[in-house]
Amino acid sequence: MQILILNGPNLNRLGRREPGIYGSQTMEESLNELRQKCPQVEITYYQSNSEGALIDRIQQAEDEGVAGIVLNAGAYTHTSVALLDAIRSVKTPVVEVHLSNIQAREDFRHTSLITAACKGIIAGFGMTSYRLAVEALLADQ
Amino acid sequence: MQILILNGPNLNRLGRREPGIYGSQTMEESLNELRQKCPQVEITYYQSNSEGALIDRIQQAEDEGVAGIVLNAGAYTHTSVALLDAIRSVKTPVVEVHLSNIQAREDFRHTSLITAACKGIIAGFGMTSYRLAVEALLADQ
Amino acid sequence: MQILILNGPNLNRLGRREPGIYGSQTMEESLNELRQKCPQVEITYYQSNSEGALIDRIQQAEDEGVAGIVLNAGAYTHTSVALLDAIRSVKTPVVEVHLSNIQAREDFRHTSLITAACKGIIAGFGMTSYRLAVEALLADQ
Amino acid sequence: MQILILNGPNLNRLGRREPGIYGSQTMEESLNELRQKCPQVEITYYQSNSEGALIDRIQQAEDEGVAGIVLNAGAYTHTSVALLDAIRSVKTPVVEVHLSNIQAREDFRHTSLITAACKGIIAGFGMTSYRLAVEALLADQ
Amino acid sequence: MQILILNGPNLNRLGRREPGIYGSQTMEESLNELRQKCPQVEITYYQSNSEGALIDRIQQAEDEGVAGIVLNAGAYTHTSVALLDAIRSVKTPVVEVHLSNIQAREDFRHTSLITAACKGIIAGFGMTSYRLAVEALLADQ
Amino acid sequence: MQILILNGPNLNRLGRREPGIYGSQTMEESLNELRQKCPQVEITYYQSNSEGALIDRIQQAEDEGVAGIVLNAGAYTHTSVALLDAIRSVKTPVVEVHLSNIQAREDFRHTSLITAACKGIIAGFGMTSYRLAVEALLADQ
Amino acid sequence: MQILILNGPNLNRLGRREPGIYGSQTMEESLNELRQKCPQVEITYYQSNSEGALIDRIQQAEDEGVAGIVLNAGAYTHTSVALLDAIRSVKTPVVEVHLSNIQAREDFRHTSLITAACKGIIAGFGMTSYRLAVEALLADQ
Amino acid sequence: MQILILNGPNLNRLGRREPGIYGSQTMEESLNELRQKCPQVEITYYQSNSEGALIDRIQQAEDEGVAGIVLNAGAYTHTSVALLDAIRSVKTPVVEVHLSNIQAREDFRHTSLITAACKGIIAGFGMTSYRLAVEALLADQ
Amino acid sequence: MQILILNGPNLNRLGRREPGIYGSQTMEESLNELRQKCPQVEITYYQSNSEGALIDRIQQAEDEGVAGIVLNAGAYTHTSVALLDAIRSVKTPVVEVHLSNIQAREDFRHTSLITAACKGIIAGFGMTSYRLAVEALLADQ
Amino acid sequence: MQILILNGPNLNRLGRREPGIYGSQTMEESLNELRQKCPQVEITYYQSNSEGALIDRIQQAEDEGVAGIVLNAGAYTHTSVALLDAIRSVKTPVVEVHLSNIQAREDFRHTSLITAACKGIIAGFGMTSYRLAVEALLADQ
Amino acid sequence: MQILILNGPNLNRLGRREPGIYGSQTMEESLNELRQKCPQVEITYYQSNSEGALIDRIQQAEDEGVAGIVLNAGAYTHTSVALLDAIRSVKTPVVEVHLSNIQAREDFRHTSLITAACKGIIAGFGMTSYRLAVEALLADQ
Amino acid sequence: MQILILNGPNLNRLGRREPGIYGSQTMEESLNELRQKCPQVEITYYQSNSEGALIDRIQQAEDEGVAGIVLNAGAYTHTSVALLDAIRSVKTPVVEVHLSNIQAREDFRHTSLITAACKGIIAGFGMTSYRLAVEALLADQ
Repeated sequence: MQILILNGPNLNRLGRREPGIYGSQTMEESLNELRQKCPQVEITYYQSNSEGALIDRIQQAEDEGVAGIVLNAGAYTHTSVALLDAIRSVKTPVVEVHLSNIQAREDFRHTSLITAACKGIIAGFGMTSYRLAVEALLADQ
Repeated sequence: MQILILNGPNLNRLGRREPGIYGSQTMEESLNELRQKCPQVEITYYQSNSEGALIDRIQQAEDEGVAGIVLNAGAYTHTSVALLDAIRSVKTPVVEVHLSNIQAREDFRHTSLITAACKGIIAGFGMTSYRLAVEALLADQ
Repeated sequence: MQILILNGPNLNRLGRREPGIYGSQTMEESLNELRQKCPQVEITYYQSNSEGALIDRIQQAEDEGVAGIVLNAGAYTHTSVALLDAIRSVKTPVVEVHLSNIQAREDFRHTSLITAACKGIIAGFGMTSYRLAVEALLADQ
Repeated sequence: MQILILNGPNLNRLGRREPGIYGSQTMEESLNELRQKCPQVEITYYQSNSEGALIDRIQQAEDEGVAGIVLNAGAYTHTSVALLDAIRSVKTPVVEVHLSNIQAREDFRHTSLITAACKGIIAGFGMTSYRLAVEALLADQ
Repeated sequence: MQILILNGPNLNRLGRREPGIYGSQTMEESLNELRQKCPQVEITYYQSNSEGALIDRIQQAEDEGVAGIVLNAGAYTHTSVALLDAIRSVKTPVVEVHLSNIQAREDFRHTSLITAACKGIIAGFGMTSYRLAVEALLADQ
Repeated sequence: MQILILNGPNLNRLGRREPGIYGSQTMEESLNELRQKCPQVEITYYQSNSEGALIDRIQQAEDEGVAGIVLNAGAYTHTSVALLDAIRSVKTPVVEVHLSNIQAREDFRHTSLITAACKGIIAGFGMTSYRLAVEALLADQ
Repeated sequence: MQILILNGPNLNRLGRREPGIYGSQTMEESLNELRQKCPQVEITYYQSNSEGALIDRIQQAEDEGVAGIVLNAGAYTHTSVALLDAIRSVKTPVVEVHLSNIQAREDFRHTSLITAACKGIIAGFGMTSYRLAVEALLADQ
Repeated sequence: MQILILNGPNLNRLGRREPGIYGSQTMEESLNELRQKCPQVEITYYQSNSEGALIDRIQQAEDEGVAGIVLNAGAYTHTSVALLDAIRSVKTPVVEVHLSNIQAREDFRHTSLITAACKGIIAGFGMTSYRLAVEALLADQ
Repeated sequence: MQILILNGPNLNRLGRREPGIYGSQTMEESLNELRQKCPQVEITYYQSNSEGALIDRIQQAEDEGVAGIVLNAGAYTHTSVALLDAIRSVKTPVVEVHLSNIQAREDFRHTSLITAACKGIIAGFGMTSYRLAVEALLADQ
Repeated sequence: MQILILNGPNLNRLGRREPGIYGSQTMEESLNELRQKCPQVEITYYQSNSEGALIDRIQQAEDEGVAGIVLNAGAYTHTSVALLDAIRSVKTPVVEVHLSNIQAREDFRHTSLITAACKGIIAGFGMTSYRLAVEALLADQ
Repeated sequence: MQILILNGPNLNRLGRREPGIYGSQTMEESLNELRQKCPQVEITYYQSNSEGALIDRIQQAEDEGVAGIVLNAGAYTHTSVALLDAIRSVKTPVVEVHLSNIQAREDFRHTSLITAACKGIIAGFGMTSYRLAVEALLADQ
Repeated sequence: MQILILNGPNLNRLGRREPGIYGSQTMEESLNELRQKCPQVEITYYQSNSEGALIDRIQQAEDEGVAGIVLNAGAYTHTSVALLDAIRSVKTPVVEVHLSNIQAREDFRHTSLITAACKGIIAGFGMTSYRLAVEALLADQ
């Protein structure tokens, strides 16, 4: 069973970027932990700063028969109708995750344009958000 | 390790209430499943239709040394500043859960007044939301 | 045929409270008149200042097989999503009533959160609003 | 005792227009029923698609000494300050009615510009709304 | 020199309608006074409750070579883009008048959709508003 | 095959009215061109400055079995819920047209209340908008 | 009979300031014309760029027994609650005037905070606005 | 002379709850100080987390002939129309108090729904706010 | 110990200005009473209609070592960011006062721009508001 | 004569994506039909999910001397000021098209940021929208 | 070549006022540095807490033939339409400066009413903002 | 010392694009002038129409040890939270520049999402804005 973890803009800087908010662990370290804790799934990872590339990857995931997508769309969460449409245009289930509790941050981070097209949302638990999202996808099988 | 599951208004009607949205399983059946899946925690359950009683119970949980609260505040999610204050007034970590994807429903359900005071939010996975919340609390120990 | 008349906050003060708006008749006197005019229905009456108690009573009414509810939610009309959910969670038809013409009063009384879940609304006719609501429920049988 | 039933735009299509919302009975059939149920009042009926013609008719009703007006202003309910002024400019009491529960429909139908000038509002009971309005006017005599 | 005084909805009820706001003089009496005070202009008068008829009359005024229009659009002041367009579509200068100080009344009377297309606005001086408007048109010759 | 071209307020002034926006061709000249370019359809034309008359004409078109309506509602586009209801109340397909690009004009012209009930919208191409609308109706047969 | 003409900020630059909007006549030339046309009133003139000085002058006018004030508050029209209060705090009638048609200019000039406290408003007629205001005050004697 | 001090939700946690905002003194200690400083009044104290119970207590206070109420409605300040109505429904004067300066906190705490029905408001002085409120009630005798 | 009472625009008209709202006592009479009731403090008084002069006086108060300022900013309360900055720029504590309950008046009086920079607010108790503010400053010593 | 058809995000999934809204025909099939119906124009086609690539292509079209662009910007219609600027920065005329009637869908699809820079808009006719847009460009030659 | 540096309210407290935001250097020290770095211009300095005095000084600058104005309007930036008009009423170019990055502060500081009338804006560089503004004026000669 | 000048969408068309707003000089000519005027810094230039590519380049600049970034984000200024996050995620100081005075243009250009993360903003001075930004970065060394 294959799961795609898809990270949006600036999430390639984890470990370096505002550690007070995002923690000091890099995404690579976190993925290793995640693969150890969820050995029953094959985890693919992709990150891009480009809205278009993220849409391309979501479409490709459906073509590849990926079982589910864990999507942290970063700042595009709050501005991208195109991502909403991309999620709606595929049958692959998508779970929205965030490292931080976006409701406890600036006002413009309180609105997610994409949640309505996702299966659900998990936010505020740091890298644990990703693991819970994988479990949510597994629970749905 | 003790965890309180706290349900707000109308959640005593699960299984009977709008099953298209909330499913046909009763809360009692769901709690049984949850206790089986998470044997390492002692789960207490409380439900009330009264905002004040929910606040009382959050305060009491801190006094009893409960390790964490899984809170589905139902409709009070969208209207209760008093619940926000209650969560802020205790040290016990609180995880907000919802059965349905509230962003995919009516506009007035898109705003949660309490998320900012919670550790995080998990929504949209039916009764699985509760189990993931318990895991999120465990991950934090 | 049993009908529940359910009154919300401060409606226990009728006859004493702002008589210029609400009239000088007490609810007890009004109920007597109503029972005389509608002898074919059995009228139960309940009032509470507590949002939670009103929700409890709506749920109980369904359990008791009440044929219809005439609900004057008072100030909760304008603030309670939980009452909206309670009405939606029962099959018992509910008719919303108001003594005064709420559109002719302060701005915050122009919005009713609960109308959308009710069968209909009758407002502005003093105690006659209640009698018309009973007739509306009868017409529907 | 004479009562004017005044219908606004598109209400001449009842029975043909969106029967899922407005029912399949024509206004003529409904008026017959209404006259049978309320034999003590003389019911006049007027419909127009023109805002100005409705205002003319309200003014004329006062000149003719009509005892009350049952007004379903249709879409003008939501846009016409001129109808509000017309109702305020006459002494004849006006009861606002709607066939459907306008609060359960599109957002722009939630606001009524004319309610504040009316004696009260009755909405959501189909043709029964008209009969209740006649009774409300009778109760006021 | 010919001037058209054009009155909108409900202004045919002057003298009878809410005299606390609009005074107890009828429009006919007021026109007599105005004709006496401004003998150098020929005053034509037209009133209609219909938005369309008012537009027709504005267009006709240009065809007749009227030197100016004094327009009290009544409630259409606040809702009619069509009147705005009509004023813009003719070369005849239009002065907007109101009997009452609309800024001191309900919020929805604070906005005039038509002022931007008029030469200017005169409001709050009762029937004197009309006379000042005639003078404003004369000053412009 | 019969098509009704229905023009709203002030569109009887085409050729005279703000030619910088609406061009200097009269509607009559434009209709001649249109009839030459679309000989396979019979084109009926109606214009009125009255909202009510436009609604009457839409209803009548359905009664007459007109195949489609090309509607330029002028300023009523932005203010008339009654026209929206009229379009919804008939089965005849309606295409909304505008001569100018209304999104490039004043803010209050950016909102069309009627588009949602129409088959589609064509705006910004001058009189060509009407011809394209006729073709859109033909394509649908 | 004494009348105070009170001009607010930047109106001391008339004749030099944006002549496309305000004309090329200085205030001094305009006052001469006004005094010739209204010989029966004694006209005092005061201008200040300071909100406080304008309030001082309004209060002083009441103390001096001035019969009326013609007030062009300039930009303070749109921002000064203090001027509103000053006008309310004196018994002297105040007429608001503007040289330009403020509704045809930028959005922030569409709102006047002071109109509600004035007797009425006259705007859009250049210096003629002042003369009409004087006549409005005379008509009220 | 009897005065009721009425505290709303979460104010039973004073001394424990966010001491940076609310101080480290418990309500009991504060009441002792207050009774010493105001020996001429008899102070009754009641706290509840329930909106309905607070309304009950306000009504009861009037029945008991209490001379005044010092009300810190906590979070219900910002959400409860029912409390507003309760204050309006009794003749007992009510003074609104807050420990903190609510205007210097989150946006949703800037609006008080109940102030308009109270005699006045005192906020920002910690427990001194209560003493000043008692003095305000005394000054009014 | 020196305290400055600082009054904003139109408060020099107390006793003459809208006595229904502000009472019929002059500020001088009120100051005499206040000095008698608070003999332990030396009270300086300053009033100005000018926003700039009020800022000057606040800055001067800090230079003179005044112990506290009681500020009734009148209408500038609702419009002056400059006063907010002035209060923030000095170390002298400032208490905001109002004679009337500003929340029970017009909408634009519901917002105070300056409260956030003040120690607290006291409103609605007439001249007693000033005395309570002096006590609040004393309590803080 | 060369025309560029430019499709934005997710329009590469036509035929697979939400067929209830977008139809079951692929873009390739539709282009074939279009080329057959408009043999006098040479149609180039480009699609991208990337906002930047769409801007690049618009600029390139001007450099290549393309006669017109038919642009379906998909979701970027509602969020991209950069596309608006790109259209304004080239002399090539652009016609905006949509398959569906965007006014009949979610609220956030009602606003188009780019229409103001386009020649016009055609929406709601499925693939016929594209053909009408080509005709609109031809009519303009 | 003469340049006026014009400072608004509370900027006479630089060095004393909130040094965390505005730095600890006084304006006098800063002016000395500025005069040394820009010896080719003659720098005049004026500060006032009064909106009216700032307008007076802008008008006077044009009369004196000043080559440019560097304006830090302080809090009036966000509230003064009168300053906007003053800048528009003179031909002297004005550059808006701010010490702090106003977009990174409170919401009400995000809006500048005066920028639209200025040549440009420079904000966020402390006293360097002033020097850059002088250079911007020189570059324009 | 190395400085990156980073230009966003459509700024590759300078000299060709709307010269009335952006001038007729190409970016290449401007860079030459800038390098001559600031010989002490090494200026790198990058432009892209893609939001993602701009983020990539900002991250790369930090990796390369660039001393500062001069960023003209073009239209992304008003829509990109992702750019805001990118600026926050690097330690390299960023100065926002604009050629035109964005406050004097369309409403949607008045809001910059990125200013709060930048050191400061310089707008309205054409290509001089870039030179001043370089100086601002130098002043900070």
